[in-house]
Amino acid sequence: MDRASDYFNEISESEPLLIPSSRRSSTSSRVWSQSPYIGGNLEALEQAGNLGRRPSEFNNPQYNSFPRHDSFDSIHLANGDAEHGINRSMQSRRETRDYTIPNALESGDSTLRNRYAPLRETSSTRVLSDRFESLDYDPCENSLFLKEESQQTFAHVNRMQTEKWIVMFLIGACVALIANGVVVTVDKISEWKYGRLRDVFDACSGTASDCLVQPLGLWVLGNIIPTLIGSILVVYVAPAAGGSGMAQVKCFLNGVKIPEFVRFKTLLVKIIGMICSLTGGLAVGKEGPMIHIGAIVGAGISQGQSTTCRTDLHILEDFRSDTEKRDFVSAGVAAGIAAAFGAPVGGVLLSLEEGASFWNQSLTWKVFFCSLTSVFVYNMIIGIYQGQPGDLSNSGLINLGAMADMTYLLYEIPIFLLMAVGGGLTGAIFNFLNFQLTMFRHKHITRNWARIMEVVLISAVTACVGFLLIYYVGDCQMMRDTSPQRTVQMLCSDGEYSSIATMLFQTSEKSLRDLLHDEPGTYKPLTLGTFVVAYFLLACWTCGSWIPSGQFIPGLLIGATWGRLCGIGVMLMLPGVAIDPGRYALIGAAAQLGGIVRMTISLTVILIEATGSIAFGLPIMITLIVAQWVGNWFNAGLFDVHIKLLRVPLLEWEPPPLSSHLVARSVMSHPVYTFKTTESVGTIVDILHKVTHNGFAVVSDGDIRSPLSDTPDTFGRMRGLILRSQLITLLQLKVFNESPDIDVIRAGLSIRSFRDTYPRYPSIKDVAITDQERRYTMDLAPYMNPSPYVVYMNTPFPRLFKLFRALGLRHLVVVDNRNQVVGILTRKDLAKFRVEMHKGKIKVEELAISNELAVNPITRACP
Amino acid sequence: MDRASDYFNEISESEPLLIPSSRRSSTSSRVWSQSPYIGGNLEALEQAGNLGRRPSEFNNPQYNSFPRHDSFDSIHLANGDAEHGINRSMQSRRETRDYTIPNALESGDSTLRNRYAPLRETSSTRVLSDRFESLDYDPCENSLFLKEESQQTFAHVNRMQTEKWIVMFLIGACVALIANGVVVTVDKISEWKYGRLRDVFDACSGTASDCLVQPLGLWVLGNIIPTLIGSILVVYVAPAAGGSGMAQVKCFLNGVKIPEFVRFKTLLVKIIGMICSLTGGLAVGKEGPMIHIGAIVGAGISQGQSTTCRTDLHILEDFRSDTEKRDFVSAGVAAGIAAAFGAPVGGVLLSLEEGASFWNQSLTWKVFFCSLTSVFVYNMIIGIYQGQPGDLSNSGLINLGAMADMTYLLYEIPIFLLMAVGGGLTGAIFNFLNFQLTMFRHKHITRNWARIMEVVLISAVTACVGFLLIYYVGDCQMMRDTSPQRTVQMLCSDGEYSSIATMLFQTSEKSLRDLLHDEPGTYKPLTLGTFVVAYFLLACWTCGSWIPSGQFIPGLLIGATWGRLCGIGVMLMLPGVAIDPGRYALIGAAAQLGGIVRMTISLTVILIEATGSIAFGLPIMITLIVAQWVGNWFNAGLFDVHIKLLRVPLLEWEPPPLSSHLVARSVMSHPVYTFKTTESVGTIVDILHKVTHNGFAVVSDGDIRSPLSDTPDTFGRMRGLILRSQLITLLQLKVFNESPDIDVIRAGLSIRSFRDTYPRYPSIKDVAITDQERRYTMDLAPYMNPSPYVVYMNTPFPRLFKLFRALGLRHLVVVDNRNQVVGILTRKDLAKFRVEMHKGKIKVEELAISNELAVNPITRACP
Repeated sequence: MDRASDYFNEISESEPLLIPSSRRSSTSSRVWSQSPYIGGNLEALEQAGNLGRRPSEFNNPQYNSFPRHDSFDSIHLANGDAEHGINRSMQSRRETRDYTIPNALESGDSTLRNRYAPLRETSSTRVLSDRFESLDYDPCENSLFLKEESQQTFAHVNRMQTEKWIVMFLIGACVALIANGVVVTVDKISEWKYGRLRDVFDACSGTASDCLVQPLGLWVLGNIIPTLIGSILVVYVAPAAGGSGMAQVKCFLNGVKIPEFVRFKTLLVKIIGMICSLTGGLAVGKEGPMIHIGAIVGAGISQGQSTTCRTDLHILEDFRSDTEKRDFVSAGVAAGIAAAFGAPVGGVLLSLEEGASFWNQSLTWKVFFCSLTSVFVYNMIIGIYQGQPGDLSNSGLINLGAMADMTYLLYEIPIFLLMAVGGGLTGAIFNFLNFQLTMFRHKHITRNWARIMEVVLISAVTACVGFLLIYYVGDCQMMRDTSPQRTVQMLCSDGEYSSIATMLFQTSEKSLRDLLHDEPGTYKPLTLGTFVVAYFLLACWTCGSWIPSGQFIPGLLIGATWGRLCGIGVMLMLPGVAIDPGRYALIGAAAQLGGIVRMTISLTVILIEATGSIAFGLPIMITLIVAQWVGNWFNAGLFDVHIKLLRVPLLEWEPPPLSSHLVARSVMSHPVYTFKTTESVGTIVDILHKVTHNGFAVVSDGDIRSPLSDTPDTFGRMRGLILRSQLITLLQLKVFNESPDIDVIRAGLSIRSFRDTYPRYPSIKDVAITDQERRYTMDLAPYMNPSPYVVYMNTPFPRLFKLFRALGLRHLVVVDNRNQVVGILTRKDLAKFRVEMHKGKIKVEELAISNELAVNPITRACP
Repeated sequence: MDRASDYFNEISESEPLLIPSSRRSSTSSRVWSQSPYIGGNLEALEQAGNLGRRPSEFNNPQYNSFPRHDSFDSIHLANGDAEHGINRSMQSRRETRDYTIPNALESGDSTLRNRYAPLRETSSTRVLSDRFESLDYDPCENSLFLKEESQQTFAHVNRMQTEKWIVMFLIGACVALIANGVVVTVDKISEWKYGRLRDVFDACSGTASDCLVQPLGLWVLGNIIPTLIGSILVVYVAPAAGGSGMAQVKCFLNGVKIPEFVRFKTLLVKIIGMICSLTGGLAVGKEGPMIHIGAIVGAGISQGQSTTCRTDLHILEDFRSDTEKRDFVSAGVAAGIAAAFGAPVGGVLLSLEEGASFWNQSLTWKVFFCSLTSVFVYNMIIGIYQGQPGDLSNSGLINLGAMADMTYLLYEIPIFLLMAVGGGLTGAIFNFLNFQLTMFRHKHITRNWARIMEVVLISAVTACVGFLLIYYVGDCQMMRDTSPQRTVQMLCSDGEYSSIATMLFQTSEKSLRDLLHDEPGTYKPLTLGTFVVAYFLLACWTCGSWIPSGQFIPGLLIGATWGRLCGIGVMLMLPGVAIDPGRYALIGAAAQLGGIVRMTISLTVILIEATGSIAFGLPIMITLIVAQWVGNWFNAGLFDVHIKLLRVPLLEWEPPPLSSHLVARSVMSHPVYTFKTTESVGTIVDILHKVTHNGFAVVSDGDIRSPLSDTPDTFGRMRGLILRSQLITLLQLKVFNESPDIDVIRAGLSIRSFRDTYPRYPSIKDVAITDQERRYTMDLAPYMNPSPYVVYMNTPFPRLFKLFRALGLRHLVVVDNRNQVVGILTRKDLAKFRVEMHKGKIKVEELAISNELAVNPITRACP
């Protein structure tokens, strides 16, 4: 047996993690640092490298000539440091790569140094919060689960499938009913409000300017009252209902638990707040909120219970797990989009694009059924409301109107491309401004009253800006057959109407539709120009305030306005050609929204479905592709910007490029707290009190030292994984080996005992344990997940990432080559390497981990 | 330390796999069976169970009362048995569950016995072939890979991204050009052929019947000549080009290597054969073949080389791996559909639905770009061909014609539902008949000349049936303004034309378009009725013959015919209402195709895009949902039927229901052949000659006995995974530790040395090893995958399945709790548990593993 090769094989086994702590003598190898996260610096790394090289290795020519990453010199250190503040973790990782492949270093490539750039100063976007819990998308097949499964038959499987279809139908129908309710309510209130305003304004036309003070006052009041109600509800009752919820939906589907995000009270506040913000005349839409509403409905209906209402119907109990709930939330999201845009396919694609990790044909089909139901029910009821029962050809909340007869010619494509570039640029500016504004809000608008005041201020300013536009721009148009249905005379002479007032005195959606369909010559260029600037700034300001608000309609409206402007420009340049400015408005709308949200295939399909113009699909697609490219050159999409500001550890689609040199042991958290399969109750209670971790490795009873002692040699041989919630349930049910009635307790235990407390488990503080019970022991083996996915210490980062992402894991235990636990990986350990694209350059940054949330009490974001 | 609990913890470690061979004394525990696959039977299992229970376990009350699946009595055996024929592996697994959870058994639930039903007699659909190799979708991060990555910069990553976009563009453009070429060629030839036939037939009109013999002969000849050419090419040059290729595309994307499937010669034969079958008048379409063509183009362009042409452009070498190739094949598939139907979104969805496992936003976007390019280029060129350059609103190969002005009413939905049920039923019948026919072909039509003769026969019969239809049905219609463009007078009087002859004397697509758009009253019900029966049988017969053929158009045409018939029926029943039979034809087409292929969301979107009728999307979706449900009640979709007949180990979307009681050790293959990190060359060569496995676990040098010896105690401690192709390359390059120039060899080695031989690696027979070299040793550690995914022995089946499926694995090593190799899992081990749905009942069957392919020399199937 070649000793050197034996060494090569076994080195990482016998000395699993020779990590010198920078705060100790770095020669004290084999000593585990006691800090939960070990900060490393360069000298320590170098010493570790030298220590790792044994003479035998240097002397054997066989092992000198070849780079190998499995031997000792590949050790490099993790820097994520929650407990010791951000600064430590900001220590550079730039040199670690050198230790991975010594030969690569020796070949002297200076380019390597530019790869993982030294981190710049801490900023609030370069931080992840470790306060976010993950969702459990990975089922735990413990013996209780197997016991339950053994009692089930295929008939049960069939019944569950049928129930799923029924629940999908209910979700779709319910979302559609809510959409109907919102549409009708907003329609009625807006009609009444703008009708009154139209009357008082028209009463002033032709008279002196002072007469306008009263109408202006009424307008401001008409805006303030509903927004005040909405923002009070949001701030004091359900902060999670603010904004559009798109960012949170994305996080939820990605596997991050957002507090209060899918509660019943959030749903109520969202619906009322949405009606308030829409009738309040703010520059918002209802599509984002509809997505959030869909998500809550999906999560709610599928559970058969509500914590807010304290009711439990004891039905659908099989669906009470994060895994199942995710499917229904996806369906709800699709149904929300479907109802909002009349776009069932687009809804499915959005749900996949924002959330899915694993494409599943049967799930996609069910989600499609749900979004289809939503469109169907919505159209049925809106048909009745509009007096055309049985006409199912309506197309959703925003009826952009059929544009099916549009054609385009080859030479128009370059113009569309230029517009796409414009959309990408303005979208990037929108996101940049909104980012700065949100940072300002996080810092300075922290009191509840200030938040409400801001919303009130926005609504007042919106009214005033509208008034100024009408007053100074005017844009009087002759009344014609093709003029919009409800026109406002305002300051214009009789027989004329003010086109800008007409645009402002209705909901944004109707303005959008008018811009797409109105005859050429309906608007003066100046009207459109001033309107677009004002609306752009207002929309940017509104986004992120404490009231439900969506960004789809504002984005589309801004784009449609300057798109129409472009159309007018093309008409002027090509006088002989018949140009429909509505077509350019549509392209502008696509470019602008694409530049803001950076959605890809789903947005394309949504726009195609909303306008009903498949023939025009190609230019829309090209526009979106280019707008997305241009926007991404400067910054990220609006949702992603806000997710960053929320400090959510979101997992991207792919691991960072060139990250194979990072291996599991360098990114994992350690030391870890492990439990023995038979563990003392006292130890469990102490550790649960001491740390906030949600998952613990369970190890063999032998060869382990107390995890609370100072210098454990190993954390023990991996046996399984147990969750905090499971431990607390076991403690509450007193499943102790020494309990006198232990047999009875065990016989009564089933997977339901754990499921009953879903989704809100009690805290360890709610568990009363006597001193005597502390001396008892608990058997963890039957309840732990006996076969979690594990990885070796030397597993490269991309592999870890793919495993984690594709399977929706929450914890991933790292073992050495003897299957002994050496660390644990959680979401933040993988999410902390973030790829930033800026001006075509890729940069990978390691984020700091903070134990603070970005916003309190409940995290929320605008889009 | 509680001894019992220690036992509980360690039992599976100390006795990793106490598997008594049924062919030995079953008391000889701790002895590994020498057979590669151990057949187990019930008695052996029971003995194993008893052996597994130790007195200590029975005596300890703590462990008596609780079901646990980790202890010894959970052992049950794998049955897959390649070497000992099918019968052994057919031994029932029905009792194994009982050993998993004893308590569940003791609680006496007879339902368990119905879960995994005893297998019935061997039939060719209940067999998987182990001759299919898997594709390597899981990258191997060995030290060469890390070395290469260390030399790359982010600029390289950017360049690769740019190259990807360019390749995507090229794929789209190339597929579109091929589609253009095919369409124009088929158009020209068909026009000429049917023009001549029209002339000779019309010359006979009014005269005696004998006159018709010559035209009939010409018709038969006109069918036979092209089909003869096509089938000769397919049979003798590229058998993989037969059929539509949809089934093979699905297998490829699923991770199964189909021999010769993506070769250049296959592409050529496919294109020529497709033109032949279309001009030969067969009941086929060109959409399936276009998908296959797209796949080949995608695989070809991305590689920068062709083995058929023996050229290597030395570009795009980074894309020479299965992982990268899969992305381009997906894009090609989408581009094929996009060009064929003018459905870019539908193309992306089909590519996802048939192939994807991991939804990746950026990949989806690129695929979308590719399919978009395809539509764009196709429309550009077809516009020039049709004399309207610059008009981009065309819609693909089958222009079903815009149906945008269609509306529908609520009371029509039930009629559509009934039609959907009809489509599901007839689709199921189609699949059943085709299944029987394919079985017959596999058995009896095995000679090459017989295969060609069958194709010739089909084409002759097609002509004769057409003739009989015209002769006996006639259906003379008055010439009107709205009559089809090119009519045939045939046996009709002057001023009239034969509607059935008009239908037959053009390509199927044009007939389809006529059925959707012709005025009410164009066809007599009898015409449609006889035509649909004849065409149904012809299409069913043609599907699976040795000529390129797609099933989309025949399916749509059959459905459109009886759909129009239904429309006429509704008109008769509701005389006062204006009914457009074309609308019913569309619903019928959707129902029929949905009933045959059972595609879901992608087919919906394709049909919506092809007809341009978003408003009509809802009824199409409902129809497809119902048709799929009804069809699935009876049998599987056409592609799935053929995949089963091909014996391909396809992995479904989800693991079988209630399969958690199956654990890794009961489904894995074992014993396994392992190599030490430093292994003798002789051993490697011997094992590679002896077995056909493609992946081998690499284990620590210590504690291992020769894998060729009779009774190894363990296969050694897991260190990595190495592929056969890697070993052969190492042997060819003579990377032996004792080679005199080993340092030079090692320095010259890079990941390119392995990539250069991609995709066709040499056989072990091509490697010359001298006797002296046999005594040398080879170092495997730097070349193996040092951190493959591994699972524990007790990992439940759903967990294995998800890991394997989501990450596209090829091998999965099973280890015990000390990280010692105990077995290996490959695709067939997971695919062999197949869920069958029949009449609403779920059934899970364990398939036999055969070492024979279903069809020789090259596997192929119809759809």
